[in-house]
Amino acid sequence: MPETRIKLQDGMRFSAITGSGHEVVMDASQEFGGQNTAARPMELLLAGLGGCTGMDVISILRKKKQEVTSFEIIVKGERAEDHPKRYTGVEVEFVIKGKNLNEEAVKRAVELSMDKYCSVKATFEGNTPVKYHYTINQ
Amino acid sequence: MPETRIKLQDGMRFSAITGSGHEVVMDASQEFGGQNTAARPMELLLAGLGGCTGMDVISILRKKKQEVTSFEIIVKGERAEDHPKRYTGVEVEFVIKGKNLNEEAVKRAVELSMDKYCSVKATFEGNTPVKYHYTINQ
Repeated sequence: MPETRIKLQDGMRFSAITGSGHEVVMDASQEFGGQNTAARPMELLLAGLGGCTGMDVISILRKKKQEVTSFEIIVKGERAEDHPKRYTGVEVEFVIKGKNLNEEAVKRAVELSMDKYCSVKATFEGNTPVKYHYTINQ
Repeated sequence: MPETRIKLQDGMRFSAITGSGHEVVMDASQEFGGQNTAARPMELLLAGLGGCTGMDVISILRKKKQEVTSFEIIVKGERAEDHPKRYTGVEVEFVIKGKNLNEEAVKRAVELSMDKYCSVKATFEGNTPVKYHYTINQ
């Protein structure tokens, strides 16, 4: 089983070395004793969700010979007010720009990722419903 | 609601700008069309879990005047074999080194994070049980 090792550097700054050997740094805000030098741990979940579904969608669209010129995923997480302040719901917006994009192909790619392939979404969704929609700009 | 924006750069490389304004980059392995230039999206979940609970634990131990000299969290995730290949279980190992550490204080700090404070753990645990243990090196 690949492991991620997360080590305290100083203050509230932690450096993770992931199973694939890459570094990911996290820090808390000043309010919580950190120095705001890097992303918050909870933000990594939203980044991971966007990257995971983004990789699914772009690879499906490339297989369908769709010419995507820009692709952005905007992920918003709503958190509980009380501890442990987990995400209670997440919204994913896909903004896809391309030439002669087939709307049905985009819709299907997004649905395949969200309903079948995206490992991050599937990990969340026991506790955190994920809603999504997409925008196509030709 | 703060948002994280994840943008396709090239190949399977995505750059996220988090709500706090920091960049987190992701890439797929060569096997999946990427260039392995950055962490996988699913690895960010393990990094985020380690950073989240690490920040809880170190801040509690500092309040208890415990002298921690090194602190590492090792996170392993077991994944389903079939799509969507979510994490089916996660193990967290805390490795804490310090001077005259009070074992009860360490135990309590870890339990408080895991049972009460850690937002990442609470987001996962509907679908993904999280086990943990700790090792103290004096």
